[in-house]
Amino acid sequence: MKIPEQRLREFTYGVFKAIGCSDGDAVLATDVLVTSDLRGIDSHGVARLSGYVRLWENGRLNPTPDIRVVHETATTATVDGDRGLGLVVAPYAMDIALEKARQYGSGWVAIRNSNHFGIAAYHALKAIEHDMIGFAVTNASPLVAPTFSTERLLGTNPICYTFPAGSYPPVVVDMATAAAANGKLEIAQRMNVPVPEGWVLTPDGQPTTDPNAVTAGGALLPLGSEYGRGSHKGFGLSATVDILSGVLSGANYGPWVPPFVAFLDPLPDQPGMGVGHFVGAMRVDGFRPVAEFKASMDHWITRFKNAKRVNPEQGVIIPGEPEYQATQQRKAQGIPLTAKVVESLEALAAKFGITALTG
Amino acid sequence: MKIPEQRLREFTYGVFKAIGCSDGDAVLATDVLVTSDLRGIDSHGVARLSGYVRLWENGRLNPTPDIRVVHETATTATVDGDRGLGLVVAPYAMDIALEKARQYGSGWVAIRNSNHFGIAAYHALKAIEHDMIGFAVTNASPLVAPTFSTERLLGTNPICYTFPAGSYPPVVVDMATAAAANGKLEIAQRMNVPVPEGWVLTPDGQPTTDPNAVTAGGALLPLGSEYGRGSHKGFGLSATVDILSGVLSGANYGPWVPPFVAFLDPLPDQPGMGVGHFVGAMRVDGFRPVAEFKASMDHWITRFKNAKRVNPEQGVIIPGEPEYQATQQRKAQGIPLTAKVVESLEALAAKFGITALTG
Repeated sequence: MKIPEQRLREFTYGVFKAIGCSDGDAVLATDVLVTSDLRGIDSHGVARLSGYVRLWENGRLNPTPDIRVVHETATTATVDGDRGLGLVVAPYAMDIALEKARQYGSGWVAIRNSNHFGIAAYHALKAIEHDMIGFAVTNASPLVAPTFSTERLLGTNPICYTFPAGSYPPVVVDMATAAAANGKLEIAQRMNVPVPEGWVLTPDGQPTTDPNAVTAGGALLPLGSEYGRGSHKGFGLSATVDILSGVLSGANYGPWVPPFVAFLDPLPDQPGMGVGHFVGAMRVDGFRPVAEFKASMDHWITRFKNAKRVNPEQGVIIPGEPEYQATQQRKAQGIPLTAKVVESLEALAAKFGITALTG
Repeated sequence: MKIPEQRLREFTYGVFKAIGCSDGDAVLATDVLVTSDLRGIDSHGVARLSGYVRLWENGRLNPTPDIRVVHETATTATVDGDRGLGLVVAPYAMDIALEKARQYGSGWVAIRNSNHFGIAAYHALKAIEHDMIGFAVTNASPLVAPTFSTERLLGTNPICYTFPAGSYPPVVVDMATAAAANGKLEIAQRMNVPVPEGWVLTPDGQPTTDPNAVTAGGALLPLGSEYGRGSHKGFGLSATVDILSGVLSGANYGPWVPPFVAFLDPLPDQPGMGVGHFVGAMRVDGFRPVAEFKASMDHWITRFKNAKRVNPEQGVIIPGEPEYQATQQRKAQGIPLTAKVVESLEALAAKFGITALTG
């Protein structure tokens, strides 16, 4: 079923209002989720709306947070999200980073006491409209085992960099630091098909293609899949994200990051507060004139698009291009939602007494 | 053969002096190379000394560069390395980043018109002594094919982050964004043994375990190895490094990055100047008190070191720990060099009329 963007926004806004968000916060949280759906990242859009509601029901999410700066220099800050929606807390922090970058060339903000912030690209893309380079990372529910371990100690901990271009869309590198995002695993589970080698481990640390291995107590693997192929690098990247997001901000880290799913309780003895993020921005003209940079970006993109192909049917994919194309298409044709997602949204409509999505 | 650290420093200093470096630059370049050998990164230490000399002989390396800032804001700068040794240019740039971070909380410097800068960790580790987080990346000779392409368009483009800890050594994530660094491939070539699956492609883009595939016109693969295991993420990381190092600084990028090996000429129609790097630093106390951060880092490290193991013999490796241990050992026992490396160094001694390494 395809839902027009505007209808999906109205509906999602209504749900965030129903859990007590302010008008502004409801509009903003809606924009983060619907932007994800527009970009084709279906796993992180309105499919998660009922998950945020369950966190609120469990008392783990504050719909009216007092978000504030708790530590600051000219170009750095730490923000306490007061258990708010990451969808609202991270944009607040990114605005601070952008203002610092406007004044001093760069700005960096660590965030503690937050919740899941949606797609990293939403936050890093805010830099683009100011001709800045954007950066956003977050830690997340522990699902990934470090190389040589069986334990789920890290989230899929995404890294996002955004770079403005000239005649092309911005380059957007937005990637889980696991071999495969959990969303892809969930798709295989629903279809009950094996997953590729290198995605998951059994509970005792053996490679498997069983899509149910993680829910059975196994783990996702870091990018690289195995030590011989460099999975220690994927672990190192994931560790970097965890340290920037959790250790530097005073949030939780490693296995203590509170799970997004409300049916799993956070571990006891939390060393920090909530989920952590880290965002930042650098002015392109802090390094060279913007027009020069954009011309070189176009040259870079053109060269990579024209790279010799292994198969004639598939060229090099410029990071961010598929999501840009999906956005154009979905803005015109509506956003496709699975029956299961529509059902979860209609259940929210019934719960809160708001107009059904398809009503 | 094991060479005492001090003897290796004297010898290396003598070679850099012989090509015309100033005393200060010779000491600094020596420190970068010998630090690599101390850390056990044998591929990037004095084994490369003859390579730098050949670049100088070919007129591609200026031993007395006029390194200067060509663009600047409070917390950003671009440095022109005047075709100098990256071993000297990058520390110059990192000092600027550190001073900006001292004043404003963070500092970021893009570098153009440089040459190979040794190990990224040398530069990023300079932040640690100031209780800062360090960052260093560089582009490099094109050897890696983007996902879906057969062409060598990217270097092994390393990423390094350094984080101070309390009672533990600093966490040092320093990793090529390829599945395997070229040095590992060279070892397999010398031993004439197959390489693991997922490292290299044949010239027509097929997977192979032939250690000679790259020299035969094939390519290294990005971290992730294949699309199904997320090699587009390795490509995205490598692209990020290339854009920060090359496009942002005004250096070359992609296939135009000048090869380190002097027998390969740079491509014509260079879009930029020399090799590019990007370095930076952020003050830990720009986010939270240093003592708190270090205590949390120790807690993080302890938890990961104690993770449940797949095999009882092999625990989780904390990034940077093996290199720290190698340094302790090699400072005490000397630096092991292969016969081939010793031979290359003695050839330099003969060329320049300086005392033989083992003389």
